[in-house]
Amino acid sequence: MLENQYNKDTYMNNVCFNRMKTEVPMNIVLLSGGSGKRLWPLSNDTRSKQFIKIFKTEDGSYESMVQRVYRQIFSVDASATVTIATSKSQVSAIHNQIGTDVGISVEPCRRDTFPAIALAAAYLHDVQRVSEEESVVVCPVDPYVEQDYFESLKKLGELAAASDANLVLMGIEPTYPSAKYGYIIPEDGGNVSRVAMFKEKPDEDTARTYMEKGALWNGGVFAFRLGYVLKRAHELIDFRDYKNLREKYDTLTKISFDYAVVEHEPQIEVMRFGGMWKDMGTWNTLTEAMESPSIGKAIMNDACDNVHVVNELDVPVLCMGLKDVVVSASPEGILVSDKTQSSYIKPFVDEIDQQIMFAEKSWGSFRVIDIEDGSMTIKVTLNAGHKMNYHSHERRDEVWTVIEGKGRTIIDGVEKEVTAGDVVTMKAGTPHTIIADTALQVIEVQIGKEISVSDKRKHIYS
Amino acid sequence: MLENQYNKDTYMNNVCFNRMKTEVPMNIVLLSGGSGKRLWPLSNDTRSKQFIKIFKTEDGSYESMVQRVYRQIFSVDASATVTIATSKSQVSAIHNQIGTDVGISVEPCRRDTFPAIALAAAYLHDVQRVSEEESVVVCPVDPYVEQDYFESLKKLGELAAASDANLVLMGIEPTYPSAKYGYIIPEDGGNVSRVAMFKEKPDEDTARTYMEKGALWNGGVFAFRLGYVLKRAHELIDFRDYKNLREKYDTLTKISFDYAVVEHEPQIEVMRFGGMWKDMGTWNTLTEAMESPSIGKAIMNDACDNVHVVNELDVPVLCMGLKDVVVSASPEGILVSDKTQSSYIKPFVDEIDQQIMFAEKSWGSFRVIDIEDGSMTIKVTLNAGHKMNYHSHERRDEVWTVIEGKGRTIIDGVEKEVTAGDVVTMKAGTPHTIIADTALQVIEVQIGKEISVSDKRKHIYS
Repeated sequence: MLENQYNKDTYMNNVCFNRMKTEVPMNIVLLSGGSGKRLWPLSNDTRSKQFIKIFKTEDGSYESMVQRVYRQIFSVDASATVTIATSKSQVSAIHNQIGTDVGISVEPCRRDTFPAIALAAAYLHDVQRVSEEESVVVCPVDPYVEQDYFESLKKLGELAAASDANLVLMGIEPTYPSAKYGYIIPEDGGNVSRVAMFKEKPDEDTARTYMEKGALWNGGVFAFRLGYVLKRAHELIDFRDYKNLREKYDTLTKISFDYAVVEHEPQIEVMRFGGMWKDMGTWNTLTEAMESPSIGKAIMNDACDNVHVVNELDVPVLCMGLKDVVVSASPEGILVSDKTQSSYIKPFVDEIDQQIMFAEKSWGSFRVIDIEDGSMTIKVTLNAGHKMNYHSHERRDEVWTVIEGKGRTIIDGVEKEVTAGDVVTMKAGTPHTIIADTALQVIEVQIGKEISVSDKRKHIYS
Repeated sequence: MLENQYNKDTYMNNVCFNRMKTEVPMNIVLLSGGSGKRLWPLSNDTRSKQFIKIFKTEDGSYESMVQRVYRQIFSVDASATVTIATSKSQVSAIHNQIGTDVGISVEPCRRDTFPAIALAAAYLHDVQRVSEEESVVVCPVDPYVEQDYFESLKKLGELAAASDANLVLMGIEPTYPSAKYGYIIPEDGGNVSRVAMFKEKPDEDTARTYMEKGALWNGGVFAFRLGYVLKRAHELIDFRDYKNLREKYDTLTKISFDYAVVEHEPQIEVMRFGGMWKDMGTWNTLTEAMESPSIGKAIMNDACDNVHVVNELDVPVLCMGLKDVVVSASPEGILVSDKTQSSYIKPFVDEIDQQIMFAEKSWGSFRVIDIEDGSMTIKVTLNAGHKMNYHSHERRDEVWTVIEGKGRTIIDGVEKEVTAGDVVTMKAGTPHTIIADTALQVIEVQIGKEISVSDKRKHIYS
């Protein structure tokens, strides 16, 4: 049987590679979700874990999960079509980190995985003009993996294009009996096999018995021909095209892809993946992927053992005599946690109710540097060529002091050039914007008794 | 012998209490030294540990070591004369924390304990008009003690005034064989006794044998008649009076009080103190004195055991699964340390070479809230009725945005009223000051390529 399997695998691989070389394009949909409270204080409501620059690159700078995955995809296939399925709130961060060439299927609101994948499928078909015969690979944006994973994704897509099966899943060979993942039980031990059964997240003992039966982790990675998912989408949702589906997105029922598609599909295959695969969901797993024990200003004495520090502040973190501890400091707060305990962080972060201290915007980013009862001071960074919306506030005055760069302000219709040292004052009610001709940094002092992000009225500048 | 001793003690106590009620005033000199790096990040070069507000008072607010000791002295003796012997750099903090009524003997520079005590003695004699017959009690400003300690200090002073001995020391009954303190070996076990011997800091085993012999800790507390120390001072230093001694202070040789006085004095007594006494020198001992496990914004999960947090930042510290750890966060940095290890902090702090991020000044305080290559932004807090010096900078422009309070600015000789929302700009070279009519808060943006505290020229405003 093993020999037969080998032949089948070889055959499939050859099919795949032949198709790859000639006609099958690689379409990848990266699912970029969640607010990622489990990596607080680096992640928060407006900043998801996939955007944290935590991985050291060859040139010594740091890249985020999104940047790493995006780079890895193109190093495997320079002509890949990448689409990120995400919410509106992440679009700015995506553009800031990987540019504007990437396709983005924007969910107007959260409606679980089936509507999200249906929307991405409609986007590929109607915007990117992908044919219904082409295959699409869906994969989360945040696994910590090497090149071989993306080579596998490519094969997965080729398999989906060529296979009788309507869905081809990636099954990750388990390295320990984890209770964190669902399991896929394949019919046989081949590289590609029919799926015998799916199993929900088990307890560790059950996971052990699954592993003995050759079960694989379900990492949420699968491929299909585009027409297959579009057909299923039209069966469940009454829509014409991508634009129409987006418009009615908020009326859709929340339903998972598993429930809407996988459970109804008898023709499912699974392809094994035995390479390195880490889920960056907790501080514990994230620190395992760090190349050095610290990022940012950190000092550790010799009595520290298995300590990791991620410090985004300008001031140092000094660690003495700690063991198995992660320390992270950001403008949002400071975490000091035993590594194992760090997986229980979510309920504690849910209870922290404070002003967002850092956010990425379409035009750059801001950081709150001081809060008082009647004022708030923030540092605004505008990327070159970007500008704020033209807007006003009802209940606060603002003062801008430019500290870096060149640009222009428009205050109540009057445009003026500004550079480092220039000061601009705006009384409540005055429409204003700032345009960055070069990268621009501004200290903004807001003065008023009821400072709120909702106190903002957009204006049109003509 | 015990009975005799009892009688002697009773006699001494009666002498003391009678004198107290009639004629002996209580003169206390508090020695306030050091930069206290061992409590980093709360203490730094400009902010010593004795000024950190860490002790909860009955009304729920926090007080510093200096404030606590000062309050305790007056609750024991409302008519006490308190003099703080300290360096110039601490005068602002002392005035801010305990007002301007306190006597301050200002050391122009550091010259060890004998010159400091000689200067304080001259101050008491020449400025406070204390007679040479009166006794003076010298004590460090930073012990963590209760009322009974100050009642003992009072007795110590009374003893010094009445005794044949020229010096009376307080001997603290040891609670464990510490290697951190010097020991006093008394001639007998009485409440007051002649000193048989002094012992330098021993190792723990030696300390144990000292304890068995009835040795007492030397906490650096002693009393003498003012004339005694003045006489010794004139023997060793050629000076006329307090003013003259201050003027030549930088020419004095560094010498300790022990070396200059104690070692040459055969007539020394020791009085036992058996009450609570803690030395607040390290994070470990400081956290023992904290009434609650945290000061400032802190969250700890149930898996934390013996964890203390002192957080001066506006954002929360979240601790999970830690044991015997102290966490402290301030504008200067973040310490996360095993409590025992925290005593080894000094060399690590010595290596931290950064901008001072927080400082108390004669007029209030400032905090650095942002640093960039070509700019620095600080929040300035002026106490009501105070003002900055009238000054200018050569190499930076400044912008003030008032965020709280009312006051006046003087810019290049022109006075103007300012209130929250007002903006004042100062080009390099322009003399400027701000006067706080009420408590005033200002965001100051400094813009220039070489921002330095030394770039400051004082002007006279007439």
